[in-house]
Amino acid sequence: MRDLIGRLSELASVSDGPGLTRLFLSASHKRAAALVAGWMREAGLHAHIDAIGNVVGWNRVAGPRLILGSHIDTVRNAGWFDGNYGVLAAIAAVAQAGALPFGVEVIAFGDEEGVRFPSTLSGSRAVAGIFEPAALADVDSDMVRMDEALLAFGGDPDRVAGLARQPAQILGYVELHIEQGPVLEAEGLAAGVVTAIAGASRYAVSVTGTAGHAGTVPMAMRHDALTATAEMILAIEAVAREHAAVVATVGALNVKPGAPNSIPGAVRFSIDLRAPTDADRLEAAAAIRAGLDRIAASRMVDYELLQTHEAPATACAPWLQAQLMAAVERRTGRAFSLPSGAGHDAMAMAALCPVGMVFVRCRGGVSHTPAEFLAAEDAAMGVDILVDFLRVFAPGRPGA
Amino acid sequence: MRDLIGRLSELASVSDGPGLTRLFLSASHKRAAALVAGWMREAGLHAHIDAIGNVVGWNRVAGPRLILGSHIDTVRNAGWFDGNYGVLAAIAAVAQAGALPFGVEVIAFGDEEGVRFPSTLSGSRAVAGIFEPAALADVDSDMVRMDEALLAFGGDPDRVAGLARQPAQILGYVELHIEQGPVLEAEGLAAGVVTAIAGASRYAVSVTGTAGHAGTVPMAMRHDALTATAEMILAIEAVAREHAAVVATVGALNVKPGAPNSIPGAVRFSIDLRAPTDADRLEAAAAIRAGLDRIAASRMVDYELLQTHEAPATACAPWLQAQLMAAVERRTGRAFSLPSGAGHDAMAMAALCPVGMVFVRCRGGVSHTPAEFLAAEDAAMGVDILVDFLRVFAPGRPGA
Repeated sequence: MRDLIGRLSELASVSDGPGLTRLFLSASHKRAAALVAGWMREAGLHAHIDAIGNVVGWNRVAGPRLILGSHIDTVRNAGWFDGNYGVLAAIAAVAQAGALPFGVEVIAFGDEEGVRFPSTLSGSRAVAGIFEPAALADVDSDMVRMDEALLAFGGDPDRVAGLARQPAQILGYVELHIEQGPVLEAEGLAAGVVTAIAGASRYAVSVTGTAGHAGTVPMAMRHDALTATAEMILAIEAVAREHAAVVATVGALNVKPGAPNSIPGAVRFSIDLRAPTDADRLEAAAAIRAGLDRIAASRMVDYELLQTHEAPATACAPWLQAQLMAAVERRTGRAFSLPSGAGHDAMAMAALCPVGMVFVRCRGGVSHTPAEFLAAEDAAMGVDILVDFLRVFAPGRPGA
Repeated sequence: MRDLIGRLSELASVSDGPGLTRLFLSASHKRAAALVAGWMREAGLHAHIDAIGNVVGWNRVAGPRLILGSHIDTVRNAGWFDGNYGVLAAIAAVAQAGALPFGVEVIAFGDEEGVRFPSTLSGSRAVAGIFEPAALADVDSDMVRMDEALLAFGGDPDRVAGLARQPAQILGYVELHIEQGPVLEAEGLAAGVVTAIAGASRYAVSVTGTAGHAGTVPMAMRHDALTATAEMILAIEAVAREHAAVVATVGALNVKPGAPNSIPGAVRFSIDLRAPTDADRLEAAAAIRAGLDRIAASRMVDYELLQTHEAPATACAPWLQAQLMAAVERRTGRAFSLPSGAGHDAMAMAALCPVGMVFVRCRGGVSHTPAEFLAAEDAAMGVDILVDFLRVFAPGRPGA
């Protein structure tokens, strides 16, 4: 696996600015795409860069194809492995697997992190046939339109719609990715199979109490927006703890007036709620609303809850899970599955075909920072699992 | 009371900038001091502006003196009544009371709000003999030193030390002030007597947990700094509720990284703790520390607590309280007392002599905003209480 880690290191040096920052359709994205296309060709694949900037490599076997892939864009000040590992591992796996009796493509998508433009998953959405043409008119923080950026990259806005594949021609989509969470490490496992990509709801909550002087208002006469919020945060946490596999996070919070000697009159905070099934997520959302209602009433404060985002859960295809699980078990000695709390290109690809994912453990579950780390033996294990899976892959039947 | 409200209105127009903003030793402070000195003279007092900028008016009766006063500096974008009311009401009361058999001074202090320089209460500290000469070298946000500002105002840094009075020459200090809290309004009372000015402790607390992805870390594996903080906020509130007359406020709070999709890794927040007795405050502080220890341990987060401020409580003299209470009861029909949660010039004057305070209700308990409001009949009631008090005033014996 000297080659894989060496390539990850080389790819990590392709960045705009110090550290690793490689946004969609940037100069570093273009250089990275060319590098990846070259490695695809070395692996015997027919490679090209498509109209939306995806790097696509094909094993030249006719007929319906299995797509392997992940992404090569990054967050700002990223680690080496998020996305990049899945792409390079897929190329290595196809090279190692040798001749296969079915068509295989490896795709390096370019817009999974959604850092540059308001929309995200442009590459996988185009392939899946669900790209919204209006997104081409979106602008980045420098007021550069996506279609302008695409032309500068060497892409073609007019040909994006033509990238959509026909479902009959695609056997499935399989993505290998670092877990970006601590579950596998805690289980002492190198890899696990993803059951579903969690659906997510986001809310912006405004709590309005009564501001006042921290010294002059007795406790019993206060309508403190922050103590009410503290109770709400604990209620949100309790709901998530009571619903298995549900996670809920209050990540952003602002207090007004925000001075040490002022009773908070208003607090705004975010709720991020995720669950592998939509039913669990909606049940938890209802329980959270009921808790917030109760707390606001008992503390005589007002609150407003605005939903700012909703994405349904994406279930991984049971037959793909089963074949991936068999490969994981053969290689690691244990069949283990877990949900994905983070979003992936597989969410978009699910509109086109059955999807499956394998997670490989990363140190401390840490991601989106230079501290992100994947041990060389775990990186190799992920490739071995893909090779094992490819060698015995049997296409599923629709609905299976 | 047409005159009192008319004068408050005229004084409120003396400001630097739109709204009412009158900082210590500013141009508007100088104009306000001249205006107040003129009104003192109209009331028959001998008036001058002293070396630290206090306006001092004396009824020309020899012997030990009772000092009445408050302050004429304001916060930025202030209301009309905070401080200014107490000064103008004292002048009106001395005028109404007629000839008195003891010396009376009215002092309009100039630095109660502490907005301009790092130190505060310069005027009352100078009179009380506890002014720190080092404060003269403090600079404001424009890097103007206090001694320079004092010279520009017409004061004299070299003569500040000489302003200190001899305890034997001062019978006491009585201050009338708006409550700046909601207690009197809730009791349906125009006025009440202050038992003590609360002591205050301030702390900066840093809670350190583990940041992470809001989607990928199961609830049971989290060390969320904000959920830990939420539990701490409720524990702090509970301690204050359990200790009568103690108030505790978490007013400022910042979350890192502070993104909706990130588990908070670190939170910083303030605690403001006040109580009319130091024993109650210290007991509450110990209970808060114990609660924070327990919560940090149970959630496996770290925390640091740094004390940033401590001021002991100032008890009002029992004999002054009794005479003020009698006047309040005669005028309002009810003897009612309450602690002061906010600081006042009386805190500094307590180093010199017995102090007493009367609070007059203000609408909604609101202060430090243009919405601050004192009804004309309540303003008049405060003057009547002072007149009544002055007419029967009997100096207390030391230690009474």
